[in-house]
Amino acid sequence: MEKNIIRIRQWLKENRARGARLLQILVRENSTRGNESSTQAILIEKCRQLGLDLDIWEIDAEELKNHPAYCCDRQSFEGSPNLVAVLKGTGGGKSMILNGHIDVVPVGDEKSWEHDAFSGKIECGKLFGRGSTDMKGGIAAMLMAIESLIACGIKLKGDCIFQSVIEEESGGAGTLAAVLRGYRADGAIIPEPTNMKVFPKQQGSMWFRITVIGRAAHGGTRYEGVSAIEKSVMVIERLQKLEKDRNAKITDPLFAKIPIPIPINIGKVSSGQWPSSVPDLATIEGRMGVSPDESIQAAQKEMEACLQEMNEQDEWFREHPLAIEWFGGRWLPGSLEVDHALMTELSNSFVEVLEKSPIIEASPWGTDGGILSTVGNTPVVIFGPGITEMAHDANEYIQLEDVFVASEVIALTLMRWCEISE
Amino acid sequence: MEKNIIRIRQWLKENRARGARLLQILVRENSTRGNESSTQAILIEKCRQLGLDLDIWEIDAEELKNHPAYCCDRQSFEGSPNLVAVLKGTGGGKSMILNGHIDVVPVGDEKSWEHDAFSGKIECGKLFGRGSTDMKGGIAAMLMAIESLIACGIKLKGDCIFQSVIEEESGGAGTLAAVLRGYRADGAIIPEPTNMKVFPKQQGSMWFRITVIGRAAHGGTRYEGVSAIEKSVMVIERLQKLEKDRNAKITDPLFAKIPIPIPINIGKVSSGQWPSSVPDLATIEGRMGVSPDESIQAAQKEMEACLQEMNEQDEWFREHPLAIEWFGGRWLPGSLEVDHALMTELSNSFVEVLEKSPIIEASPWGTDGGILSTVGNTPVVIFGPGITEMAHDANEYIQLEDVFVASEVIALTLMRWCEISE
Repeated sequence: MEKNIIRIRQWLKENRARGARLLQILVRENSTRGNESSTQAILIEKCRQLGLDLDIWEIDAEELKNHPAYCCDRQSFEGSPNLVAVLKGTGGGKSMILNGHIDVVPVGDEKSWEHDAFSGKIECGKLFGRGSTDMKGGIAAMLMAIESLIACGIKLKGDCIFQSVIEEESGGAGTLAAVLRGYRADGAIIPEPTNMKVFPKQQGSMWFRITVIGRAAHGGTRYEGVSAIEKSVMVIERLQKLEKDRNAKITDPLFAKIPIPIPINIGKVSSGQWPSSVPDLATIEGRMGVSPDESIQAAQKEMEACLQEMNEQDEWFREHPLAIEWFGGRWLPGSLEVDHALMTELSNSFVEVLEKSPIIEASPWGTDGGILSTVGNTPVVIFGPGITEMAHDANEYIQLEDVFVASEVIALTLMRWCEISE
Repeated sequence: MEKNIIRIRQWLKENRARGARLLQILVRENSTRGNESSTQAILIEKCRQLGLDLDIWEIDAEELKNHPAYCCDRQSFEGSPNLVAVLKGTGGGKSMILNGHIDVVPVGDEKSWEHDAFSGKIECGKLFGRGSTDMKGGIAAMLMAIESLIACGIKLKGDCIFQSVIEEESGGAGTLAAVLRGYRADGAIIPEPTNMKVFPKQQGSMWFRITVIGRAAHGGTRYEGVSAIEKSVMVIERLQKLEKDRNAKITDPLFAKIPIPIPINIGKVSSGQWPSSVPDLATIEGRMGVSPDESIQAAQKEMEACLQEMNEQDEWFREHPLAIEWFGGRWLPGSLEVDHALMTELSNSFVEVLEKSPIIEASPWGTDGGILSTVGNTPVVIFGPGITEMAHDANEYIQLEDVFVASEVIALTLMRWCEISE
């Protein structure tokens, strides 16, 4: 083992330029939703060269649409293939899924970017571009780990299943399709941008829209109307209280350093059309965080009960009840015991490479780990080289050093988990 | 005098059909902003037949634009004439302006109207259509009053100056132009829809837009951001307190029956673009009521001081101050002493016709009376036959009976105010 570790380390050191180049060409391709194919093509060719068994398919929306975990507003996935590439083991070891998503969020305001958003520019050890951190850096780290094993002639007993999926940013249809196609394993690593922290638990989340009804009137006689804005303030304050109550119940030490473990974020409020009219309608849209230890449904019921209480206690709401709609994105929470063998092997590998213990926390956002663990019954750890704060931001970048370190940690974990075939 | 009153009453009774027909053809013309000319043409022809001295002109925006009371987003008034028609007195009496606006607000949702919005349909003594109440009914009442005097051969000593102006609904450029053209008088009646109440005082108003800055963040780590929505709730609550404080200072008995004499109406709130992001910007738009006893500027200063206080006391606002903009509509307040001679003469006429005292209140909205009294230095009373609640509403109508009663009250007031030349 010790010898193999040294060989892996050596190979990764010698192939840094190669790894940086792979990440660069991945980042230079725009793989926003609907445009994933050219980036997938690069990965397909890479995996073909590595001699992996390829499975490339387009998701059939018809097949998935009735699954309870399916949450997607896309009509067709034509031209946006999912990719699974398997490094077959010799048999007898545990299998491992290495999962990453190839879709990236939109560029946003281009004027906020210093370089072109898909430049892949390297400066002072940083590689810039949309997707560099979230999460093409993680994908490159996984592939470099696999390549290092192959290059060093190390054979694994268990299968290593590399996945490059679409649709993570929009609710996880890509990973759900892979799970339903049969891809499950004894463990999985998803190298989302964790700042090299290890997340055995992930916050789930979903979007809500609350409709608040008022009664219109002229602003000069506003007492004849009922302001949907004033009523919305009541709702906002009630949601703030709900957030406080829900978070007070979180005792998991993994959340100890997180100010609000499962936030209720009010992201959008829209009401009224005319300054001198009393608004008769307001909509409040937001994102509700879901604890790793509760279900999406339980969290939804808690918020619904809150609104129901308001509908019973407030005279106006009794006649004009608040309505809630769970729309758009939804990300299942995920949870793995901190002492699970996968955590142990990953932590040991981390210590081996970095000579210190990893920071273990719960993630503040959902990942495809929710679907993989809940639907796919696969133990999942989130650990990756990207910078949490840079995800979705302008001037997104990644530290290349972290990509190679993560690569080494993943390679060592694969050797420990899948076992080496002598 | 007694004899003249009887003759006027008799003539009005005999000419009800004539008055209803006049109002009907006025309502059947769409005189929304920019489309006033065909309705003005009917009035011009009517005034010509009555033998009044006509003054018809298009407002010159260039001439008005630097006047402090000018508040208008219209570039040109071409094709939308103002009309002033004078019944010259024999000399020696007090002059009276009878002012009405010919512009009407948009129809709104046509599906909400039972009949065509410009039907002029008469059913059970009600005449339906946009503008019937606000305020073509008042214009018809004024013209019938003038016609009754002429028809009965009653000559006035003072001038009676009939005005049909444009732009009242958009800030009063029509009346301002008439004032600056030289039309001032010893008194004025504006028959806006008061439910036959008498309003010596009128609430002024103006629009504001407050910009609230936040700091964006991912909803899952919302504690890293500053929500522009949460900050807006603070602003809304502060404005509610300001409204309370301002109204607590109102002691005028004319406001005794009005729950909120000078409301601050928050008509529009808009913040955020994405449910799972912390919003970094919010705008709050509304209408601030102005007391008849204060100036627009004083009211503005009071709200600005409030925001200034928040900008000093709140840590976030100190770095990211609230900004206020006074945009769009602005209506000057108006105020006349309750014991002014014009009030006395109008009240006496009211008692003469209706055998009861009028209800005297302050108006919950601004009228052209603000400009006429403040800029034109002309004492103004608002009194008219329209139905306050129907103004700007779908299925707007007016009770024809009220039009004729208001006509008689106006005719009697003219005889008392301008005096009869024997």
